[in-house]
Amino acid sequence: MHHHDQPHRYALHAQLDADTLPITSFALSDVRLMDDANYPWLVLVPRVPDASEITDLDAAQRHMLSDEIDRAARALREGFRPFKLNIAALGNLVPQLHVHVIARQQSDPAWPLPVWGRVAAKPHTPELLVERIAQLQALLRN
Amino acid sequence: MHHHDQPHRYALHAQLDADTLPITSFALSDVRLMDDANYPWLVLVPRVPDASEITDLDAAQRHMLSDEIDRAARALREGFRPFKLNIAALGNLVPQLHVHVIARQQSDPAWPLPVWGRVAAKPHTPELLVERIAQLQALLRN
Repeated sequence: MHHHDQPHRYALHAQLDADTLPITSFALSDVRLMDDANYPWLVLVPRVPDASEITDLDAAQRHMLSDEIDRAARALREGFRPFKLNIAALGNLVPQLHVHVIARQQSDPAWPLPVWGRVAAKPHTPELLVERIAQLQALLRN
Repeated sequence: MHHHDQPHRYALHAQLDADTLPITSFALSDVRLMDDANYPWLVLVPRVPDASEITDLDAAQRHMLSDEIDRAARALREGFRPFKLNIAALGNLVPQLHVHVIARQQSDPAWPLPVWGRVAAKPHTPELLVERIAQLQALLRN
């Protein structure tokens, strides 16, 4: 088989790989932690080759993504008691389809605006990162 | 029956009513146009009493909302050929659950950042409003 004939494979976009850390895998999506301690911030990346828009998923995949967003949102709600959840598929800078699920508090540095382009990301310390990943893995196991 | 016993009824939040105009109704959601000519910008408002988060919907409602977001996104794609779609449920200022579906271009005034809190809304002229609503109603009929 010529390599031209091979179907595209799913691979995480390099920018998402650089900005986030792996937490767990759901049936459709990889669940990753944004390395920004300003907010509890998950990113769901459906493992669908070449998807950049919600409209690139079929109905079954969209419904599964909706279920996985709900699951991530419930985990953040349970773990962090946010004032509000923010859920968004933007992708203006990184074309690979990914969904932000963010726990917002009235005390966070971007409130009440959306988080993008407001304050510089605050990388987790190694200690906090280990703790946060373990906490999220436990929350997402339910 | 005491009025205390009445279930809550769905009513559009006053701020959404002020900021948007009715386009059509889907099975679950009202589809409205944000009165900001900077971007083709739809807002879907599920007619579910007291819903403020995605997690307030049951699975069937979430799947229906996913289908309706897809339908709105396809209409904007067909009508405006956006460089990227932005889809978001934020609600930091207006607690009633609503989903933004926005057609973004690299030439729009907030690109590449999300639209919120960037440039002042540019209300449609009456002529453009009539034209835009008719256009969107035709696109959403498909």
